[in-house]
Amino acid sequence: MQTFNITSRQNPVIKSWLELKKNKTSDFFFVEGEHLVKMAHDNGALFTYISVNDANPYGVDHYVIHPSIVEKITDLKNSPGIFGVCKKHVASLDFTKPIVFLDDLRDPGNLGTILRTGLAFDFINVVASPNSVNFYNDKVIMAGQGAHFRLNLVTMEFNQLLQQAKKHGYQIVATSLKKATPLETLTPSEKMVLVIGNEARGVSNEVLEAADQTIKISMSDAIESLNASIAAAIIMHAYYQKRF
Amino acid sequence: MQTFNITSRQNPVIKSWLELKKNKTSDFFFVEGEHLVKMAHDNGALFTYISVNDANPYGVDHYVIHPSIVEKITDLKNSPGIFGVCKKHVASLDFTKPIVFLDDLRDPGNLGTILRTGLAFDFINVVASPNSVNFYNDKVIMAGQGAHFRLNLVTMEFNQLLQQAKKHGYQIVATSLKKATPLETLTPSEKMVLVIGNEARGVSNEVLEAADQTIKISMSDAIESLNASIAAAIIMHAYYQKRF
Repeated sequence: MQTFNITSRQNPVIKSWLELKKNKTSDFFFVEGEHLVKMAHDNGALFTYISVNDANPYGVDHYVIHPSIVEKITDLKNSPGIFGVCKKHVASLDFTKPIVFLDDLRDPGNLGTILRTGLAFDFINVVASPNSVNFYNDKVIMAGQGAHFRLNLVTMEFNQLLQQAKKHGYQIVATSLKKATPLETLTPSEKMVLVIGNEARGVSNEVLEAADQTIKISMSDAIESLNASIAAAIIMHAYYQKRF
Repeated sequence: MQTFNITSRQNPVIKSWLELKKNKTSDFFFVEGEHLVKMAHDNGALFTYISVNDANPYGVDHYVIHPSIVEKITDLKNSPGIFGVCKKHVASLDFTKPIVFLDDLRDPGNLGTILRTGLAFDFINVVASPNSVNFYNDKVIMAGQGAHFRLNLVTMEFNQLLQQAKKHGYQIVATSLKKATPLETLTPSEKMVLVIGNEARGVSNEVLEAADQTIKISMSDAIESLNASIAAAIIMHAYYQKRF
């Protein structure tokens, strides 16, 4: 454990952090804010602590940065001046637990919220199609509120997931606004792949054809659809409520 | 119904639109995108239609703008070039329907999503404390997906709402992580004020003290809390599921 003082905005370590924020294939990622840094630490993922303040409660290498450096590395209007470099939680799917599949989900706020909600309701496997927004997008990390350190996050095509999931006896459950049975008819099981569709077009036809069940959430006809992260949450909660 | 062609970026009508976007106390508001413009029209709220395209399917005054004007008035990276000036839906609370109270909700995405979900699950009254984000913030309008045209949106202090709601026999139901009964114990009734707290501090003590019931959503202890709009959705859905 070492402490480094960074006073110059030209220090090359700053450039390495900025590159880390852009590089989504690294084994590490960059987080901001006390909550995320603490979550990283609590999950053994905090590699480097960065702050304007001298104190280091985390027992890892600490970079004390001059306040003028904060604006170079922050994404926020009012930055707390606390950052961390974290190790990604690399894990394969746990086939004793339910899976969420994201079928080209595009909005980072939706993805982050689905991760946070997934962890709350025991959907600890999250698989995203390659066209979905990246798990390590800054806004996804923020909205995820630390779920990144616990969940099994995997990117793969639906067909690849389908093969693996079928081998393990999973059922594919997709949401759809038409030709669907009400959520209340869902028999909750750990062996479930819940598919959440793209914000604009919903679940793709390819996936709908492979689905064992399509469900819909009953609602007023005053509005066309629910937000994707809301629909996901209502279904994941229904699962958790019946299982625990 | 008239058609106007706007080719100059200096045309004063553009300035009036930009001012409308900033002025939250006007009787009108500005929307972007075909879905919102169509929702405004379908709800009789579309006052002026603005587009780069000649066609006007809405039968209201139409401003055909030069494409170079779009970037001056858009909030989006890829604007569809479709806008509308809309009348606000001004209405008082409907005391035959449930009410959501937002206790200093700050995030515009959360507020917009709560409006969209509220409309889906018959919570057609939404009351925001004065410290909450404004109903007509651009991001709130986007996330609301047209719910603004149907809901009764009111800004007032909790104490003022409490007096009115009590007079009409309402119960105050707040969410809390401690000293709360599970959501499943909630007896759904139209005469319910559901309180959703601030993203950082939750429901204020003042409101908790006035609550007839505090409820919590059961979840894994791997994460501290749910996003505010997710918690709101799960409770509103539970109400709708039991009532309809």
